[in-house]
Amino acid sequence: MAGPSFQALPGFRDFIPRECAVRNYLFETWRSVARRCGYVEYESPILEDTGLYLRKSGGELSSQLFRFEDQGGRDVTLRPEVTASLARLAAEHQRHFPKPLKWFEIGQCFRYEKPQKGRGREFHQFNVDILGEAGPTADAELISLAIEAMLAFGFVEGDFIVRVSDRNAWIGFANNHGVSEDAIPDFLNLVDKIEREKPDVLAQKLAAFSLTPEMVRAFIADSGNASTAFTAIQADLTARGLGGFVELDLSIVRGLAYYTGVVFEVFDSRKSMRAVAGGGRYDTLVSTISDGAVDLPATGFAMGDYVIRNLIEETPHASILMDAWLQRNTAACEVYVVIADEARRDESLKLVTQLRRAGVATDFPLNAAKVPKQFQSAERCGARFALVVGAEYPDLKLKILSNRTEESGNAENAIDWLTSRLQQPDGPLLA
Amino acid sequence: MAGPSFQALPGFRDFIPRECAVRNYLFETWRSVARRCGYVEYESPILEDTGLYLRKSGGELSSQLFRFEDQGGRDVTLRPEVTASLARLAAEHQRHFPKPLKWFEIGQCFRYEKPQKGRGREFHQFNVDILGEAGPTADAELISLAIEAMLAFGFVEGDFIVRVSDRNAWIGFANNHGVSEDAIPDFLNLVDKIEREKPDVLAQKLAAFSLTPEMVRAFIADSGNASTAFTAIQADLTARGLGGFVELDLSIVRGLAYYTGVVFEVFDSRKSMRAVAGGGRYDTLVSTISDGAVDLPATGFAMGDYVIRNLIEETPHASILMDAWLQRNTAACEVYVVIADEARRDESLKLVTQLRRAGVATDFPLNAAKVPKQFQSAERCGARFALVVGAEYPDLKLKILSNRTEESGNAENAIDWLTSRLQQPDGPLLA
Repeated sequence: MAGPSFQALPGFRDFIPRECAVRNYLFETWRSVARRCGYVEYESPILEDTGLYLRKSGGELSSQLFRFEDQGGRDVTLRPEVTASLARLAAEHQRHFPKPLKWFEIGQCFRYEKPQKGRGREFHQFNVDILGEAGPTADAELISLAIEAMLAFGFVEGDFIVRVSDRNAWIGFANNHGVSEDAIPDFLNLVDKIEREKPDVLAQKLAAFSLTPEMVRAFIADSGNASTAFTAIQADLTARGLGGFVELDLSIVRGLAYYTGVVFEVFDSRKSMRAVAGGGRYDTLVSTISDGAVDLPATGFAMGDYVIRNLIEETPHASILMDAWLQRNTAACEVYVVIADEARRDESLKLVTQLRRAGVATDFPLNAAKVPKQFQSAERCGARFALVVGAEYPDLKLKILSNRTEESGNAENAIDWLTSRLQQPDGPLLA
Repeated sequence: MAGPSFQALPGFRDFIPRECAVRNYLFETWRSVARRCGYVEYESPILEDTGLYLRKSGGELSSQLFRFEDQGGRDVTLRPEVTASLARLAAEHQRHFPKPLKWFEIGQCFRYEKPQKGRGREFHQFNVDILGEAGPTADAELISLAIEAMLAFGFVEGDFIVRVSDRNAWIGFANNHGVSEDAIPDFLNLVDKIEREKPDVLAQKLAAFSLTPEMVRAFIADSGNASTAFTAIQADLTARGLGGFVELDLSIVRGLAYYTGVVFEVFDSRKSMRAVAGGGRYDTLVSTISDGAVDLPATGFAMGDYVIRNLIEETPHASILMDAWLQRNTAACEVYVVIADEARRDESLKLVTQLRRAGVATDFPLNAAKVPKQFQSAERCGARFALVVGAEYPDLKLKILSNRTEESGNAENAIDWLTSRLQQPDGPLLA
C-alpha cells in the first residue's frame, strides 16, 4: 500500500462516473442484443461452494481462486467464471422451463492473476448459453449472437473473425492414431499449446503418443477434417448472411476440460489477434455438477469487458458509437433551473419536482449563488437548457445552452413546454 | 449441505429469470429516479481492504464480515456496505468534479448474518449520496429522492413516512446535561435502544449519566427540540409538495458511529413498520478515511432490495406496477418465426436475422417440428406474433396470438411490416 490512506486492491477497479458509464454501455449493448435474439437474463451468486469449481473445471483455475473459509467453516470461492453456477441452476430448475433454455448473464468474476494491461483480478463477463439442444443449430444460434454483439458495437466484416473448431475432430484423430481414451485430455492440452510450447518439448511430448508436430499441423491444415457439425454451422450462418464471419480453425481446443464438441473463439483480426470471446459445447457438465441427476446438453460462450473495451477504443468506427452513447448518457441533467431571485426558491423547488416527476433529468443550485455561477454549473453538469426563475415569475426564460438563444414561457404550462421542447432540436449556433 | 449435489450457499440467492426480472425492475426504477434527480452513477469494488471497514464504522459490522486473507497475504473483506468505499473514491477523485457531487450506486453487499425472511447474506443496495455541501438543502434534496423513489414504485401518501432526526439535537441535550464528549457515542447508543432495551437495564445505564428514561422520552416527545436543520428540511420539502411525507422523530439516531448530524429512516407506515431505507449526514468520514487529506461534508442513504420488494408485493397499488413491468419485460421474444416448411429454413433464418437486427426480439425453432408444436413454443416464450414461413414463401402469414386473428404480408417488406405492426394494438379477442 502506498501511504496510509486506502486504495482499491491491486487488480480491482473504481468505476468513477465516466468509467461506470462505459461499463453501462457494454452492459446495455450486451443485454439488448441478447434480448432481441430471444435470450432471458439470470444471475447466480458471486460466492459459491469451492467444490463447484474443483469438480468441474479439472482444476485449471484452482491456483487463481479467491478461496476462503467463511464464518460457518464452509470452503467458499468468489466465482472465477459463471458456467459452473449455471449448470447448478439448470440442474435444479430446468424442469420448469421449455427447452431449449436460452439464458444470458452479465456479472463479475474474480481470478487471482498478475494484474496487467487488459487483465484485472475482477472483470465483467457476458455469459450466453443454450441448454437442452444437442445439435449444431444451437451452436450456430449461439455463434450468431456472438457476431451480432460485435456488429452492435460497430465492428464490421474484416475487424473480427470467429474461429470454429470441434474437439470431436481431434478425438477422431486420436482414436485413429491409437491414443488411449485416458490420454485424450493430455493430448488435447498439447494441441492447445501447439504454437506456444517450445518445439523440442512439444516434439518429445507428442512422441509419447507416437505422434509428431508435423502430423498435428497437417491435420489442422486440412480443411477436409472439418466435422459435420462445423459444416452444418457454416451453412446455417451463411443462410443468415453471417458466413463471412466464420472460419475453420482446428488449432482451437480451448483450455477448460469440460468442453465436449464444437469450440470457438472470436478474434480481433486487425491488430492484436486477441480473443474477444470464447466458448463451446459442454454436454456433460450439468450431469457432472448434478451427480448424474440431470442430463442436459449445452453450449455457451463468454465475452469479457477488458478486451472488448480496448478493442472498441482502438477502432474508430466502434469508438464513435460508444462516444455518442456516452455523450447522451453521462450528462447529470437535461434542464438546470437557475434561481435568479432567491425569493423564488420555493417556486423553483416546485418546478424542479414537477420536471423530475415528468421524467426530465433536472438539477438546481442547493444554495444561493450569483446567476453567472449558476450558468457555469448548468454547463458543467452537461445540461441542454437553463430554465431561469426570476423576479418575473411566473414568467420564465429558457436559455438554450448550445446556441445561446433564449425562449420565453410561463410556470403554468412549464412541464408541457419543456418536455415538448426537449423533443425538438436546438437549432444552429448564433454568431 | 443437503445431498451430494451443489446448492447455493445459505443466504445467497439464485436469480432464475423471473427473479432476475424483479431485480431488474428494482434496479431500473432506482436508476431512472436517480438520473432524473441529477445524480450520476459510480461503482466501487466488491472486495476491499478490511481496514476500510474497521476504521470507519467503529466496528459495528466487524462480527458480520466475509473477511479473509488473499493469496498475496492481504486482509480483505467482501463489502458489508458501500459508504466507506465511496468516501475512499471521493477523497481520491473529488478534485476533478464540481461540488456538490451527487452520486448513486446500485450493487451487492455481504454480511454474515443468520438468514431469515427478509434478510440474506447478500443483498442489493441503492446508495445515494451528496458530497461537498454541508447545509440542510442537501439533506432535503437527498430525502426528496428517497420519497420520489417510493412514489416511482407506486406507493402513495399514507403508505410510508420519512422519520427525520438530528444527532446534533442529542449532542445539545447531552451537553446541557453534563454528558462528557467522550461518553456521547455510548449515550447515543442508549437513545438508539430506548424502546428495545430492558427497562431496568436502560434506567441503570442512563443513571450513569445522571439521566432517566423519562428525561430522554420527554426530550423525544417535545417537537420544540427540532433542530434548525430539521426545520429547514421540512420547509424545503413542503415547497416541493412533499411536506406530508416527513415527520420529526428524535428517537432515531441510527446505529453506525459515523453519522454526524441529520439522520432519517423511511418507514412502512401501514403494517410492518419496517425501515425501507435509512441514512444521514457523515461530515467527517471522508476526512477519517483519507487521514485528513480531504475534508468533504456528506449526506447519504441506502435502500436495500429485500424490504422494498416485500413491501411492493404486499401493496396492491405498487405490485400492479411491478407486474405490468414484468409482463412487458419477461417475454423471451415478441415475434416467433414458425417454419411451416422445413425447406424454407434458410429463408427463415434470414428473416430472423433481419428482424433481430431491426431491434425486434425474435425466436424460432432450432429443429424441425410440427406446426402446432411451434405455435405452442411461440406461446410459451410469450411471443405476441407468430410469423409463419411456409411453402407460399415469399408470402407470409402473421398470427396475432392474443386474439387468433391473421394477417398477410410478404418477405420483401417483412421488416417494415412487422416493426410498424408492433407499434399498433392487437385488437379485441375474436369470439
